[in-house]
Amino acid sequence: MESLSKNKIKLVRSLQRKKFRDEYGLFVLEGHKSVTEALNHYPELIEFLVSSDDSNMLTENHYFLAESEINEISGLSSGAQWLAVVKKPKIQSINKQHIVVIDGIQDPGNLGTIIRSCDWFGMTEIICSKDTVDCYNRKTVQATMGSIFRVKVEYVDLKRYLESYNHPIYGALMEGENIFKSEVQNKGALVFGNEGNGIREDIQKLITHPIHIPGKGNAESLNVAIAAGIVISEFSKRSML
Amino acid sequence: MESLSKNKIKLVRSLQRKKFRDEYGLFVLEGHKSVTEALNHYPELIEFLVSSDDSNMLTENHYFLAESEINEISGLSSGAQWLAVVKKPKIQSINKQHIVVIDGIQDPGNLGTIIRSCDWFGMTEIICSKDTVDCYNRKTVQATMGSIFRVKVEYVDLKRYLESYNHPIYGALMEGENIFKSEVQNKGALVFGNEGNGIREDIQKLITHPIHIPGKGNAESLNVAIAAGIVISEFSKRSML
Repeated sequence: MESLSKNKIKLVRSLQRKKFRDEYGLFVLEGHKSVTEALNHYPELIEFLVSSDDSNMLTENHYFLAESEINEISGLSSGAQWLAVVKKPKIQSINKQHIVVIDGIQDPGNLGTIIRSCDWFGMTEIICSKDTVDCYNRKTVQATMGSIFRVKVEYVDLKRYLESYNHPIYGALMEGENIFKSEVQNKGALVFGNEGNGIREDIQKLITHPIHIPGKGNAESLNVAIAAGIVISEFSKRSML
Repeated sequence: MESLSKNKIKLVRSLQRKKFRDEYGLFVLEGHKSVTEALNHYPELIEFLVSSDDSNMLTENHYFLAESEINEISGLSSGAQWLAVVKKPKIQSINKQHIVVIDGIQDPGNLGTIIRSCDWFGMTEIICSKDTVDCYNRKTVQATMGSIFRVKVEYVDLKRYLESYNHPIYGALMEGENIFKSEVQNKGALVFGNEGNGIREDIQKLITHPIHIPGKGNAESLNVAIAAGIVISEFSKRSML
């Protein structure tokens, strides 16, 4: 197992920035579990991998780097002993029933968790507004727990996209209909908004089916990834019956 | 508005550690919205507050500190311009129907989000194993979005606690019954386990009603805060009807 070249170190570091992830079509995957899973299931996407453990070489493109060096080039605060540089996957959406739409979510953990929930419930397509956090951000990738390889995520002009979308558009709004009692169409878009501001006004206008998750406590709102989880599970459940 | 004394700065810093939060019965709240909300609704709990904005004084115990200094004593990476030192609230649980039980959750964001979901759905009591992350950790407090003042969180010997608990004990397990089709008792404990390892074996043995959230995709599991959100919403909904 060779030591990682300076150029490759530079590449890994550059991938902390969206600009370079877009330019090279690559992103960084961290953690032993994630890296070995990717290697088992998506070997064609792995450019190279790096570990601080030099006892068993997993692939030709497996390099060695001391743990302190991996920590240094890693964008996450907690130390990763494994990382891989990976090609962005080209995913075909299988589920043609429901799509999930994200309007301006900023927290990478929230987006990653929503991608993971979509994968669990079999919704394979997410459409994001252009100002939504990048799905290849390291914290997002980490929160997806591998689902980044199975859910198609696209960034579009959301207003234009929804204006030409010909199915029901559901949106979680305070004054919406009780999600547990409302009718669920077999096709539709489920829209979730920004953490602080919710769904933007010009997108709200395009919502044909406002929905609401009824609470009986005192919190002002639910975390957006939780709200998305509940709505996605409800739609998945109903279209399963 | 006075400048913050060295002793108070030292106090704020010490509260990054659980040991001192326990010793003093205090914790730190961050962000303008959280601090002013606490001041409006729980003024008796505020020891003092600090802001970098010296234009309007909110209370007698309002001190000034430059933004760079607040950042320096703050445990969060993102800069807080407001913080308050707050007494741990003494909360009476109102909901006697369902309690939420946490077995070893480590991520402060996950615990905080679960506290927020409990508050939304009106479940006012959470029982945690002693090795669960502290609910007064700054990241946990931040994720609760104020719900830390309304949901009672206790740390106990979980095995002993559940052994003497006389109602159904629901636990999210892979081989459990479909939560959407299973009967829901009006009283019971809902147990959620650690992010990586799930519910510990000796706690699993005490579960009387194993439940499961059915998925039809490919993810290995759901994030624990999402799973908790879905289960809590399901129990809340059913006991609302």
